[in-house]
Amino acid sequence: MTGTAYGLGIGPGEPDLITLKAYKILQDVAVIAYPALEDGISLARSIVDPHVPAGRIEIAIRIPMGPPADAIYDRAALEIGAHLQAGRDVAVLCEGDPFFYGSFMYLFGRLAEAGHIVKTVPGVSSMMACAAQLGAPLAAKNDVLQVIPAPLSAERLTAQLQDTDAAAIIKLGRHFAKVRKVIEALGLTDRARYIERATLDTQKMIPLGDLPPDAVAPYFSMILIHRRGDAWR
Amino acid sequence: MTGTAYGLGIGPGEPDLITLKAYKILQDVAVIAYPALEDGISLARSIVDPHVPAGRIEIAIRIPMGPPADAIYDRAALEIGAHLQAGRDVAVLCEGDPFFYGSFMYLFGRLAEAGHIVKTVPGVSSMMACAAQLGAPLAAKNDVLQVIPAPLSAERLTAQLQDTDAAAIIKLGRHFAKVRKVIEALGLTDRARYIERATLDTQKMIPLGDLPPDAVAPYFSMILIHRRGDAWR
Repeated sequence: MTGTAYGLGIGPGEPDLITLKAYKILQDVAVIAYPALEDGISLARSIVDPHVPAGRIEIAIRIPMGPPADAIYDRAALEIGAHLQAGRDVAVLCEGDPFFYGSFMYLFGRLAEAGHIVKTVPGVSSMMACAAQLGAPLAAKNDVLQVIPAPLSAERLTAQLQDTDAAAIIKLGRHFAKVRKVIEALGLTDRARYIERATLDTQKMIPLGDLPPDAVAPYFSMILIHRRGDAWR
Repeated sequence: MTGTAYGLGIGPGEPDLITLKAYKILQDVAVIAYPALEDGISLARSIVDPHVPAGRIEIAIRIPMGPPADAIYDRAALEIGAHLQAGRDVAVLCEGDPFFYGSFMYLFGRLAEAGHIVKTVPGVSSMMACAAQLGAPLAAKNDVLQVIPAPLSAERLTAQLQDTDAAAIIKLGRHFAKVRKVIEALGLTDRARYIERATLDTQKMIPLGDLPPDAVAPYFSMILIHRRGDAWR
């Protein structure tokens, strides 16, 4: 009997925003794996901390910042694969939703191609959590909603936002100043809401125009824009 | 003491895809309200059926198919408002996520403008559930992900899909044949996956190209497209 690998969406940060399904799987698996910074600190692990029973085998996948690190995912897939072959189920913790810009997909591809059983459990993504916290519906009716990564060029950002009904700009971090300039040039600043670390204790939210010009944004931050101001109008 | 209204994301269909937070709120509230068809049948109510304790006051908001029905939401907001003023908390059940094309936002606007306390609890949206079931990550890296409602014109659909990295086409229903034609004309059929009623017992999924030409789609169906075939490549 080989084990099953679960890509487990654990939600945006508040521990109770995990699903019942993911919670139950966490109680049952022998092994949990999670992305961590190079120093071993893991947001994913801290989110589920109240829910993880003692005595689990834990695998911290230390991922350097920057582009996907093939060798690291190769090695993690082998380590997880060994547990699966020994009949142990493995839950891979995924902040938000596993398949919404999540690094789990790099493991998913490798594990599935190696013939392992891999199941993905969807989670509450940060985009939905940001909208809920802001009281700002993402999109309604026949709106096209665009999810736009901030590392794109100012030119591409402008083209995408030009005629948008609604947009979520993700991965702000060091691209924040560039994004603000584009939004300002398009006259969309008063339609833009900023939020960081949604649902965590350290959450902060503010209309984009109220931020000082030199404000910096963490990686876990987002700008939501709706052309009508409120999606329901 | 006035009550609190909760817009409660209950997930895409499988009862255990509700969050712990929404589950706990369901145990505590005196009143639950939910959208229903004109005959009173409610998908939202059926999803939470295993989780609702006996003896709750229930409000079925009967919504005719078609454009948002202002008078119906006006009346529902008044009925819910009366419970809130009497100090009773009310959970409004929302399939998927409340703020992702959800009808809850029409109540949210009315209740908030009337001065009630309204909190939104984000949920697992159908888009994330579809991706999980299909084993098809939505977007990665610097992909722009577009959420596109199928009722848009063939011309607009073509323009949106022309250079897209990744797209989810929602609300297919009677617009299915038009959407398929657009996808075919753009040469994207072999990149397109079809799924209906994700995570429900009646779920069905199939590569778009394998569906017969005269296939029909329910409202609760979706097409996911990724230009690279698999987002992680």
